[in-house]
Amino acid sequence: MEHIGEQTIKFENPPTILEAASIVGPKESQGPLAKFFDQCIEDEFWGEKSWEKAESKFVKETVGNLISKSGISNSDIDYCFAGDLLNQCISSSFGLRELNIPFFGVFGACSTFVESMCLGSIFVGSGSAKNVLCATSSHFCSAEKQFRFPLELGNQRPPTSQWTVTGSGAVILSSSGQGPYITHITPGKIVDMGIKDANNMGAAMAPAALSTLVTHFRDTGRKPSYYDAIITGDLGHIGKEILTELAETKGYNIKSNYNDCGVLIFDKQSQDTHSGGSGCGCIGTVFSGYFFKQLKEKKLKRILLIATGALMNSTSTQQGESIPGIAHAISIEC
Amino acid sequence: MEHIGEQTIKFENPPTILEAASIVGPKESQGPLAKFFDQCIEDEFWGEKSWEKAESKFVKETVGNLISKSGISNSDIDYCFAGDLLNQCISSSFGLRELNIPFFGVFGACSTFVESMCLGSIFVGSGSAKNVLCATSSHFCSAEKQFRFPLELGNQRPPTSQWTVTGSGAVILSSSGQGPYITHITPGKIVDMGIKDANNMGAAMAPAALSTLVTHFRDTGRKPSYYDAIITGDLGHIGKEILTELAETKGYNIKSNYNDCGVLIFDKQSQDTHSGGSGCGCIGTVFSGYFFKQLKEKKLKRILLIATGALMNSTSTQQGESIPGIAHAISIEC
Repeated sequence: MEHIGEQTIKFENPPTILEAASIVGPKESQGPLAKFFDQCIEDEFWGEKSWEKAESKFVKETVGNLISKSGISNSDIDYCFAGDLLNQCISSSFGLRELNIPFFGVFGACSTFVESMCLGSIFVGSGSAKNVLCATSSHFCSAEKQFRFPLELGNQRPPTSQWTVTGSGAVILSSSGQGPYITHITPGKIVDMGIKDANNMGAAMAPAALSTLVTHFRDTGRKPSYYDAIITGDLGHIGKEILTELAETKGYNIKSNYNDCGVLIFDKQSQDTHSGGSGCGCIGTVFSGYFFKQLKEKKLKRILLIATGALMNSTSTQQGESIPGIAHAISIEC
Repeated sequence: MEHIGEQTIKFENPPTILEAASIVGPKESQGPLAKFFDQCIEDEFWGEKSWEKAESKFVKETVGNLISKSGISNSDIDYCFAGDLLNQCISSSFGLRELNIPFFGVFGACSTFVESMCLGSIFVGSGSAKNVLCATSSHFCSAEKQFRFPLELGNQRPPTSQWTVTGSGAVILSSSGQGPYITHITPGKIVDMGIKDANNMGAAMAPAALSTLVTHFRDTGRKPSYYDAIITGDLGHIGKEILTELAETKGYNIKSNYNDCGVLIFDKQSQDTHSGGSGCGCIGTVFSGYFFKQLKEKKLKRILLIATGALMNSTSTQQGESIPGIAHAISIEC
């Protein structure tokens, strides 16, 4: 492991992403990426009595599916890294409480998935673990209930708002395997530009994405064109546009190879999600479902995956606080 | 780094705990450990407009104090690991948003402090970072408001309940220094024995502490007598008694050298906290204030520090769920 530049770690023995799994909810099942997910669930409750319990079930089933697809057993997985949007990350702890694998709870809001892959890759890359598991989830109904309004109220959503993805994504990182490999990580700093509108997360998080993006290029000496795809977590349509423009002001043209998981997961015309998808499950399912397969099939050979998070809660918004953003990046190469 | 036994990592190049800092609130300032803390604040609001903002100020001031005591500058600290009990860990993100250091949000409930030291020590031990910062906090008023009842209601607290510590503790881990050293980490598994009483966290968390304790001894081949002190995070009086008894049933006698930060921080007779202290800030301040100094002065040379957490939220309790516990352990040796 080598610390390069300001914030980046380069792996001498890059961990392999051994396997990935994803399960999504009803709206995602009608979106353009539906065929890439392992399972599409039509019932938001998935037979459970609450949305919170349903979200835990998404995590549990996704991880169960992941382990059985991977061909390795529970006992071969040394540590597990997981987190989610629910207060005190209960989807992860309840979803994984029977897993019997040492557990690190992680919270980076919607950046959680890549944060957990950063941490997991350090454990594997340093020889502290042979295999680790990284998982995350979100659920439209549990998130709306917790962060915004009771769904029964039928509140109007402003055009800048995003639609929390219902689903879970998970990966196993391993010290041995044929790739794709995590070659670098660039963990991000908290960036707060004073945005206070909790219905405009894209704008709140884009400056953090810019900070991590620019730092990654500086630290590695790479240019945007090095990557087949630069993918952000859930900036959505508005945040994607802001990041593209901000990057240009810093001298980085990412127009041709940049996209956002929140833009990809829903159809803008027909699905009425306003600025696109969001939530930990957004990049979690889109990476685990779609991009992992593109990498395995060598349709993409080098991607920069940047998950963005808004580090606020409903109390901080009520108390007039602005929204600190964060973004963590990993290079994945075949 | 070497993975030994089932869950433990042993450091070939053990990170030093370079410096520690702690600031506590009014009740802690009247407790038996008051003289060991860097600062005692008499006003629960610390001049802020809300308890949440006050908690962020505890984090910010503790970390500021820590860095200035340490003699190294902000820019020498590569990564920061922090988390707390507030929804979406806002004390940490708001308290540290101006720090300008890459940030990993961590959530392990009251196990957060040792979880962050586990993660930080892997970064330092593997050469991924030279210096990292680990911080945590809790606040009696913000925790009561969020998890239980409005304080203005004046609800009675049952005898099994614990008193959330108001305060913040933080440490810097470094690749160079004269110790005390983190020589081993034993991250814990989620253990859920079906306890549902949210006013009896000690009972809910003791089985997780047992699991990590026993695993640590098995993995390292050490016995309880190896350590000058075995310290749990916040099991309180009731949880401490349960753990002592459970350990004995497994063949480990810890009666003579085991204590709990929740027992130590308040005076049982005069301070009316029932089962003792709790919260991320409990082990955070007691380690950073008291035990770190005991180690620096060689009054203690080997301690096993085990932080325990209850991975629930108020919604899960309302929905009839039991309380999953977790415990993470680190060996600290001079």
